[in-house]
Amino acid sequence: MTDPETEMLAEEPETEAELDEPRLSAIRDALSDRDRTALDDLLEPLHGADIADLLEQIDEGQRMVLIELWSGQIDGEILSELDESLRQEVLRALPAEDVAEAVRELDTDDVVDLVENLEDEDQAGAILKALDDIDRVAVEQALTYPEYSAGRLMQREVVIAPSFWTVGQTIDHLRSAEDLPQQFYHVILVDPRVRPVGYVTLGKMLSSRRDTPLSEIEEESFRTFEVTDPEEDVAYAFNQYHLISAPVVDADDRLMGVITIDDAIRILDEEAEEDILRLAGVDSEEAISNRTRDVVRRRFPWLAVNLVTAILASIVIAQFDAVITQIVALAVLMPIVASMGGNAGTQSLTVAVRALATRDLTGANVWRVIRREVAAGAINGAAFAVIMGIVGVVWFGSPMLGVVIAVAMVINLVVAGLAGVGIPVVLEKVGIDPALASGAFVTTVTDVVGFFAFLGLAALWLL
Amino acid sequence: MTDPETEMLAEEPETEAELDEPRLSAIRDALSDRDRTALDDLLEPLHGADIADLLEQIDEGQRMVLIELWSGQIDGEILSELDESLRQEVLRALPAEDVAEAVRELDTDDVVDLVENLEDEDQAGAILKALDDIDRVAVEQALTYPEYSAGRLMQREVVIAPSFWTVGQTIDHLRSAEDLPQQFYHVILVDPRVRPVGYVTLGKMLSSRRDTPLSEIEEESFRTFEVTDPEEDVAYAFNQYHLISAPVVDADDRLMGVITIDDAIRILDEEAEEDILRLAGVDSEEAISNRTRDVVRRRFPWLAVNLVTAILASIVIAQFDAVITQIVALAVLMPIVASMGGNAGTQSLTVAVRALATRDLTGANVWRVIRREVAAGAINGAAFAVIMGIVGVVWFGSPMLGVVIAVAMVINLVVAGLAGVGIPVVLEKVGIDPALASGAFVTTVTDVVGFFAFLGLAALWLL
Repeated sequence: MTDPETEMLAEEPETEAELDEPRLSAIRDALSDRDRTALDDLLEPLHGADIADLLEQIDEGQRMVLIELWSGQIDGEILSELDESLRQEVLRALPAEDVAEAVRELDTDDVVDLVENLEDEDQAGAILKALDDIDRVAVEQALTYPEYSAGRLMQREVVIAPSFWTVGQTIDHLRSAEDLPQQFYHVILVDPRVRPVGYVTLGKMLSSRRDTPLSEIEEESFRTFEVTDPEEDVAYAFNQYHLISAPVVDADDRLMGVITIDDAIRILDEEAEEDILRLAGVDSEEAISNRTRDVVRRRFPWLAVNLVTAILASIVIAQFDAVITQIVALAVLMPIVASMGGNAGTQSLTVAVRALATRDLTGANVWRVIRREVAAGAINGAAFAVIMGIVGVVWFGSPMLGVVIAVAMVINLVVAGLAGVGIPVVLEKVGIDPALASGAFVTTVTDVVGFFAFLGLAALWLL
Repeated sequence: MTDPETEMLAEEPETEAELDEPRLSAIRDALSDRDRTALDDLLEPLHGADIADLLEQIDEGQRMVLIELWSGQIDGEILSELDESLRQEVLRALPAEDVAEAVRELDTDDVVDLVENLEDEDQAGAILKALDDIDRVAVEQALTYPEYSAGRLMQREVVIAPSFWTVGQTIDHLRSAEDLPQQFYHVILVDPRVRPVGYVTLGKMLSSRRDTPLSEIEEESFRTFEVTDPEEDVAYAFNQYHLISAPVVDADDRLMGVITIDDAIRILDEEAEEDILRLAGVDSEEAISNRTRDVVRRRFPWLAVNLVTAILASIVIAQFDAVITQIVALAVLMPIVASMGGNAGTQSLTVAVRALATRDLTGANVWRVIRREVAAGAINGAAFAVIMGIVGVVWFGSPMLGVVIAVAMVINLVVAGLAGVGIPVVLEKVGIDPALASGAFVTTVTDVVGFFAFLGLAALWLL
């Protein structure tokens, strides 16, 4: 630490305000009162990301008032942060010159992100036209790479140096450079064919003497990605190896751009979000700002799948209608067995899906995990079998009914453990996202097995 | 871009290998054969994070063989990356001098993370003893801050400069500094009382002339955290405002340390993971490397809660046993209504829990979202009511049974939408994690309402 010895007057830093509830409700008041001065004062200290959140939280009428009234401008940053479903609406409401100005501030990766999700071709065309030639070519080239690839994620603005340069040469070069990226964390070392061969952190650069060759202070190891690498592999590597930025190369190993940590975090976030939503049968694109008709449309297919599952279970029950007519207690108790199996299955399933996503469940431990889940199902099944056996006896006064529900419980919880791990592993093997499809399969299995075991055993032992 | 003109021989960069399936199975073979040469060759190109993953994926016997056989050492990085449940086991297996050496390499925040989760007091003591005095004091002080606070997350190693310095002075200072952090991205500007007043990015520092005052190139806005701020607020801010590092201050605004992006990503990861697992009724600490007895113990409470829920639903059914005895078709169809309600409720619930976590669901839009979910429930309910009405008629030849199931379906899906958003919002208000508790409440509501509406309407209209 440095201990400054002389007294001085420090300028007060400009700390940004947060979008908390009091500010939010003050903003809504200013919008209803159409009070521009109050609105400007309230929005001025906010970060672009918070203004994007604000736009997502107010309704469409208020959004239009805000855009019309606010003296500040919807800039590139706000547009980038905005949920996709709202971007088009906001872009339509903005004057063309505002859009052009907003877009020119952005790094190429953010422009790509903006353009690739626009359904409106005219809007996309207008954005591209606003760019200068170099940037437009870069964006158009990025759009030729596959969706969800490293090529789409990277920015073209890079900081490079030949690996035979010294620290001093590099610093002199940076001081005279005109078009540096907004943020950069490394200098990428390249060979004469512009192939990346290593990198130097800016910290090392600043703490080394001017005559130090870059090759002497380069990091020991480094990772590059290819333009066609899937973005989820890139995000995984950033997280796993704590990368801050990494070069992207083409098939000939030539440097094409650089991916930075903020892009990787966005992908990691999206992937986790996708898993959470898909596990619950919600479309991964659903956002809290969606309209009712989108929500209805997005949720319907999953509920339809569940209906088929539920009808399957009903068909199993229908096979035993004669038994139920004789012993109505079976109808009362049967949902318990199915529900416990469904819950135990969901537990195993969720752990397995996440472990697959984080690559912690692999060929090395899959059998051990399956054995463990089945054993855990058997042990918890036995515990609940005892409890339910007692409930059966106390409630319905029938020891044999207690035995039936107990045995069915053990069977269903063992099957739940097996299906909960087995199904996602198999789906992953055949290339289907386990988060998307496992839930329906596992519940079908535990419902069918639960009803069949319980009613079947009842037919065998109670009649 | 710089275009190097002279031809040169570039050193090949050392690219790290990945822990893919072939390598994993080769490592397991080497472990069973106790083949040290093969093991060393296979492990040598791996990143510490991958070696930690490897240790998590093999079983305990293989782990001990690896530790004993491998010529490389379990270093600080590997220990940091290791799942908490395995750290103690590995630490016990390591010679004391290896542990001491491993720990001395780490930044203080990683040592804090290591020590705070150790249940074994002796191990924690040994680790603290291995540190030099300055670091030990830093770690011990960090441990006095509340768990899950910014103070625990920060590292003490910081790079600061008085704000009246020039770029040249700062670079000269960095060149002569001895104990710089492993990674740093900013120089924090401080006043004479060591209170942070701003920061300069290293990129700006490198691209500015030596005589430029730091105050001229400092960033326009900056955020500091207090040592007592909850780590989830810190992580949220890093994600929301795309921070790379941020200073942490004490109650007197004095600089105490710095939090970097890798810590924030870890917390974001943990929070998303926690939500996913809790929504599925799995303890948030559960890891794929847990033993069976831990899995049993961790899952039992949630299954017990579910049992109570299921019994409640059974009690509702039991009220209608006379009706079921007369019309056994009710027993066959009733799980469909409950299941559809449970699924629709889980959809609404998951969207609401995530929107609360990402702070997208606030006082500004909660009523709009509730209205939307109820409307979506009514519309999807109506669609499935028509389908199920037809199924009722075709399968059981009873139009009135079709009407009963259709009306019950609409009621239950509306209630599911209401409960799915309302319950997590209320839980959040009263300070309970909505991810943890909402699921049980929502399913109870949809089960009870589903069975009650279906069987109750049947009793009214069919008898």
